[in-house]
Amino acid sequence: MDVMAVKNYLLDLQQRIVAGIGGIEGKPFRTDSWDRPEGGGGISMLVEEGNVLERAGVNFSHVTGKNLPPSASASRPEVAGRSFEAMGVSLVLHPRNPYAPTVHMNVRFFAAHPTSVSTAMTGARREAEENATRHTKAGRQGAGDEGDKAAAPSSQPIWWFGGGMDLTPYYGYEEDAAHFHRVCRDALAPFGADAYARYKKWCDEYFYLKHRQEPRGIGGVFFDDLSAPDFDTCFALQRSVGDHFLDAYMPLLERRKDVSYGERERDWQAYRRGRYVEFNLVYDRGTIFGLQSGGRTESILMSLPPIVKWRYDWRPQAGTPEAKLYSDFLIGRNWLG
Amino acid sequence: MDVMAVKNYLLDLQQRIVAGIGGIEGKPFRTDSWDRPEGGGGISMLVEEGNVLERAGVNFSHVTGKNLPPSASASRPEVAGRSFEAMGVSLVLHPRNPYAPTVHMNVRFFAAHPTSVSTAMTGARREAEENATRHTKAGRQGAGDEGDKAAAPSSQPIWWFGGGMDLTPYYGYEEDAAHFHRVCRDALAPFGADAYARYKKWCDEYFYLKHRQEPRGIGGVFFDDLSAPDFDTCFALQRSVGDHFLDAYMPLLERRKDVSYGERERDWQAYRRGRYVEFNLVYDRGTIFGLQSGGRTESILMSLPPIVKWRYDWRPQAGTPEAKLYSDFLIGRNWLG
Repeated sequence: MDVMAVKNYLLDLQQRIVAGIGGIEGKPFRTDSWDRPEGGGGISMLVEEGNVLERAGVNFSHVTGKNLPPSASASRPEVAGRSFEAMGVSLVLHPRNPYAPTVHMNVRFFAAHPTSVSTAMTGARREAEENATRHTKAGRQGAGDEGDKAAAPSSQPIWWFGGGMDLTPYYGYEEDAAHFHRVCRDALAPFGADAYARYKKWCDEYFYLKHRQEPRGIGGVFFDDLSAPDFDTCFALQRSVGDHFLDAYMPLLERRKDVSYGERERDWQAYRRGRYVEFNLVYDRGTIFGLQSGGRTESILMSLPPIVKWRYDWRPQAGTPEAKLYSDFLIGRNWLG
Repeated sequence: MDVMAVKNYLLDLQQRIVAGIGGIEGKPFRTDSWDRPEGGGGISMLVEEGNVLERAGVNFSHVTGKNLPPSASASRPEVAGRSFEAMGVSLVLHPRNPYAPTVHMNVRFFAAHPTSVSTAMTGARREAEENATRHTKAGRQGAGDEGDKAAAPSSQPIWWFGGGMDLTPYYGYEEDAAHFHRVCRDALAPFGADAYARYKKWCDEYFYLKHRQEPRGIGGVFFDDLSAPDFDTCFALQRSVGDHFLDAYMPLLERRKDVSYGERERDWQAYRRGRYVEFNLVYDRGTIFGLQSGGRTESILMSLPPIVKWRYDWRPQAGTPEAKLYSDFLIGRNWLG
């Protein structure tokens, strides 16, 4: 496990993505570096009221902590309470033009470290401690399951990768959705014939608003808890996803950023952006983990759109392009035939 | 425990509040009655784009269910999984004028019913079942704590009241905050010398955005899990809170609804409304319980403001009326000297 290699990759990816967007956007990104009092820090790069992007953040963060909160370890309860580090690049771009889709991409790496032994421990010292622990466990026979678990030191680091990208259009274009998914498939092709299908399905399941019975957008790919078959393969997969982001999204932004629009489209965009807020604040694991673990609020909430409207029980009229988003796009479709 | 009396009070309260607001608002409230497939239903009364209120909902709901979700029973784990009914009136008024504060009021009643015995069971049959259960428990000695708990029928209904009201200004007025709190204190005065102080503190603690280290507004009163000393007293306390709502809020709306304002104030209002969204979707027990328990999404999310803006790391300039909201009002103050 080479944590520094992951960190260097992520820092470089952030720069490449900002440079890639920069040519279209025009307005320079603002850079905010921050330290986290409890450990770690980050670099937030963002644009507000840009030429093309109304609000956009491309954030790197590296958070270290002593007690992993339960939201981060729901699927691996054995690591709750451990010291941890989490690093990632997370971006959300909200274009001003309602015909251009919002996009989200995230690649992250997580490692929970042993709590009872130092991470810098030498092999010999670790072996000695493990022997001592086995001895203690044997002496406690009959204390019940809980006693055993508490005594087990879990001295192996536990790590995993996670990430993905997904698209949230306000007006649907079949060719845009197909292009985005095609690039996602290409990114995953070297990692098994079924990787794209599996992570596409996972994305549809994850980015879903249960209380609306509605997908957030037209999906993409999503993966988490990835640690098999080994570190090198997982890291390569994560790099491939990160490296394909600009190919997946920039052609769509190019095509739609200058389509003419009026108040009607802006209103619809603001209304639909409400779903983005609902998803991120009610369901998104990264957002909730970030807010719970004392993450930097302003960086985490850069994912929220600049202007949002809520309206009671509102549905677009049948036959309109707005209605078509629901009927033809927000239905968990297979975009690659 | 007279469930029908509570229901009748709540239905009447909804009508009285809507009538009380109606005179100032002018635009008639829209009424939407709905049934809940899993049991229960509600009556939503609302205004959007009104003369005074930009978005406002005064909702009655009565929800019944077979399995109490964990979010509702965090403080009483013994009732998770029971059948339940929850009823209440919940309102949020978002005036258009940024000088008029947003207000929230809620009064609710909750009852968890026995799961292993019918609520309509006669005394004799219940006694027979309890004897049988004791017998079974005795026969299971040694099965451990969990076996015992599963066999215990918890045949007593468990009920409690909850509620309160709180104020969220965009521009602070000391006399408005004092008036609102004075009426809250009056509402609770018959119920013990320390009731207001206790529920004022609870309100400050509850309506708090941890990730911002910021109170949602200037507070009011909040209570929950109220079942002592007896049903009649708790119900009387709830009625007193509900009955004082118009006195607490309407004078403020009257005073501020016609203050002149411009884009600056509207922008600030939209920005601050973002905090309202963050609180309701990340922390609010009623909202999360409602969305989890299959509540009616459009009624629950009537609490969200009509137009909201997010802006990165933004603070008002020192010395402005906007900065004064943070320095003089959002500080958990004691408003009654």
